[in-house]
Amino acid sequence: MISLTTDFDDFYSGQMKGIIHKINSDAKIIDITHKIKRYSIYEAAYVISNSYAFFPNGTIHVVVVDPGVGSDRIPIVINFDGHIFVGPDNGIFSFFDGEVFKINLDILSQKSLKYGINSISNSFHGRDIFAPAAALLDIGIMDFLEKTNRHVKLPFKKEISENIALISILYVDSFGNIILNLKKEDVNIKGIEVFGVDIPVLTHYEEGNGLDLIALYSSSGHLEISKYLGDANSILKLESGDLLRINLKN
Amino acid sequence: MISLTTDFDDFYSGQMKGIIHKINSDAKIIDITHKIKRYSIYEAAYVISNSYAFFPNGTIHVVVVDPGVGSDRIPIVINFDGHIFVGPDNGIFSFFDGEVFKINLDILSQKSLKYGINSISNSFHGRDIFAPAAALLDIGIMDFLEKTNRHVKLPFKKEISENIALISILYVDSFGNIILNLKKEDVNIKGIEVFGVDIPVLTHYEEGNGLDLIALYSSSGHLEISKYLGDANSILKLESGDLLRINLKN
Amino acid sequence: MISLTTDFDDFYSGQMKGIIHKINSDAKIIDITHKIKRYSIYEAAYVISNSYAFFPNGTIHVVVVDPGVGSDRIPIVINFDGHIFVGPDNGIFSFFDGEVFKINLDILSQKSLKYGINSISNSFHGRDIFAPAAALLDIGIMDFLEKTNRHVKLPFKKEISENIALISILYVDSFGNIILNLKKEDVNIKGIEVFGVDIPVLTHYEEGNGLDLIALYSSSGHLEISKYLGDANSILKLESGDLLRINLKN
Repeated sequence: MISLTTDFDDFYSGQMKGIIHKINSDAKIIDITHKIKRYSIYEAAYVISNSYAFFPNGTIHVVVVDPGVGSDRIPIVINFDGHIFVGPDNGIFSFFDGEVFKINLDILSQKSLKYGINSISNSFHGRDIFAPAAALLDIGIMDFLEKTNRHVKLPFKKEISENIALISILYVDSFGNIILNLKKEDVNIKGIEVFGVDIPVLTHYEEGNGLDLIALYSSSGHLEISKYLGDANSILKLESGDLLRINLKN
Repeated sequence: MISLTTDFDDFYSGQMKGIIHKINSDAKIIDITHKIKRYSIYEAAYVISNSYAFFPNGTIHVVVVDPGVGSDRIPIVINFDGHIFVGPDNGIFSFFDGEVFKINLDILSQKSLKYGINSISNSFHGRDIFAPAAALLDIGIMDFLEKTNRHVKLPFKKEISENIALISILYVDSFGNIILNLKKEDVNIKGIEVFGVDIPVLTHYEEGNGLDLIALYSSSGHLEISKYLGDANSILKLESGDLLRINLKN
Repeated sequence: MISLTTDFDDFYSGQMKGIIHKINSDAKIIDITHKIKRYSIYEAAYVISNSYAFFPNGTIHVVVVDPGVGSDRIPIVINFDGHIFVGPDNGIFSFFDGEVFKINLDILSQKSLKYGINSISNSFHGRDIFAPAAALLDIGIMDFLEKTNRHVKLPFKKEISENIALISILYVDSFGNIILNLKKEDVNIKGIEVFGVDIPVLTHYEEGNGLDLIALYSSSGHLEISKYLGDANSILKLESGDLLRINLKN
């Protein structure tokens, strides 16, 4: 099984699926999302780290958010926690401490050629490198992998000192919920203060009925700022990768 | 076969698909849409009632638009017209007069645990309850179902008196077509008047060439207000669940 | 295998998938995209011409962007380059010089009826004609096809005279890249001038770091105007089908 996570909210993801089926017409492809904010490697890193474990072991996860396509960032494959990850080495796999392999493009091209795939563009490696690599891995061909020690990691932040935390925004979802790099086990709090606004930590969305901003532990276990039947981020205007200073209330 | 209809225009629908495949790696999943307007139980009710019959008998339709997630609204399964519907009991299944079952969460959790699914969050029952329930039903496991008489229905309106109709808006599609809770068999009209504007009832979109607003019977059989190559709702600004008073012209 | 390309960013594409499965519950359906700009037959023509070859030979490509639905434009099937194309004859298949067939609706209806599909609406031929036609072709039923000489082609332009080119915009992608009807083999240039702005022709996106607009040959082989980590079209405001005069710089 192959999952796809990209910022190709467009026909580009369709071309990737076509290529995978050229190599294996029985391939099973599942979209995680193609709605990553364009170029946001921070969002991609959060989404895949928070999603892969809901898939069967052995799933091959292709993640392509690739602002540096055509530059010298390398194409990699990571083996982590029983799952395989395929994509550019630009930080999207920051949360995975696994075995890392570089994709040897000469060998990949040679293997792909047998399936009628015959060139690598400078601008669309999702289709020309990562989709064929995933499809080949899916049918057990892996001789284009070479061990490497390279592995770019993004500076996601979590600094907690007494009553202040300096943390990264992990993600803002399509409901406007803002997910923070802070878990229940990190702190024991009844509320937070952000930009001078007091925000209570509650248990479920509906408790926010009649209130303004609220916080609760999201389905990923992270603290999330929310607004009941509203859009918290229309007020706070944050995005994945931003740093936020919050006061912690016990 | 499992269909999905949600307001998760995001990676959340991807996680649901992952979970379904954890339980049954051969599952066949079809997206109806993940573009329901967020929190709009009215839209969801229309979309699933208007779409299910285009699927094979026996399809399991998961519908998750769930503003009350984590509250006391119950998770249900409905057996109606040869199809199975799974989702929260908040009105999204208003149009289905079938046999209703409550999902027993203790039994569901116990069954899901065998597939490595081991907790239910307060904020994402699409992934933690409805996806596993659908996947289990799809492989014939249904002992988590308990008969119930509960079934929330939304107040969709259709009051016709001589030349005036008071009706609910069912849906506004991505072309800006406004679909009304009024069918051909309800009235015999040549036109309608809405907000003082005369709108002729025509047969197909292209007859609206050169005209402003037009109406025709949509592919669901309902009267729909439209604008040829335009966006009728950029003028009328209506949404699913709104009430509209129209004058009927014979 | 059946691919889908439409402007139904909505549940309408879901209904098409349901119908296909009614005819063949084992059908394999791949979305190319449902994000074609609504009514843009120019975009659809580019997307399918640029995407089909990435799919396995024999794929049936359903393309539905259909502003004239219900009018006298005919439903067609084209056999071209080892692929099958199904959709309205309104120019979306402009780039395919293959054998063209008209769909005989009486025979199609009769064949579809066996699968419980029993009427053709005036407003949604994607679901009522093109989806069943593709599903039937996919299982080898093709007696609803009749040879025809009709085939609408759109006036995509490419006029090159010394240092000036008058060309059509093929597409603007979700990153704001503007794809021109001009290929590497058409011209030998170091830059272009558009609306008085000099734009260098480079090799990959990252070379545009620190620059404003750049051009490069896209993954489809066409010249594309781009902005590194930005949105070129937020400046130029072009769309598929527009004509553009550019000065060529050697």
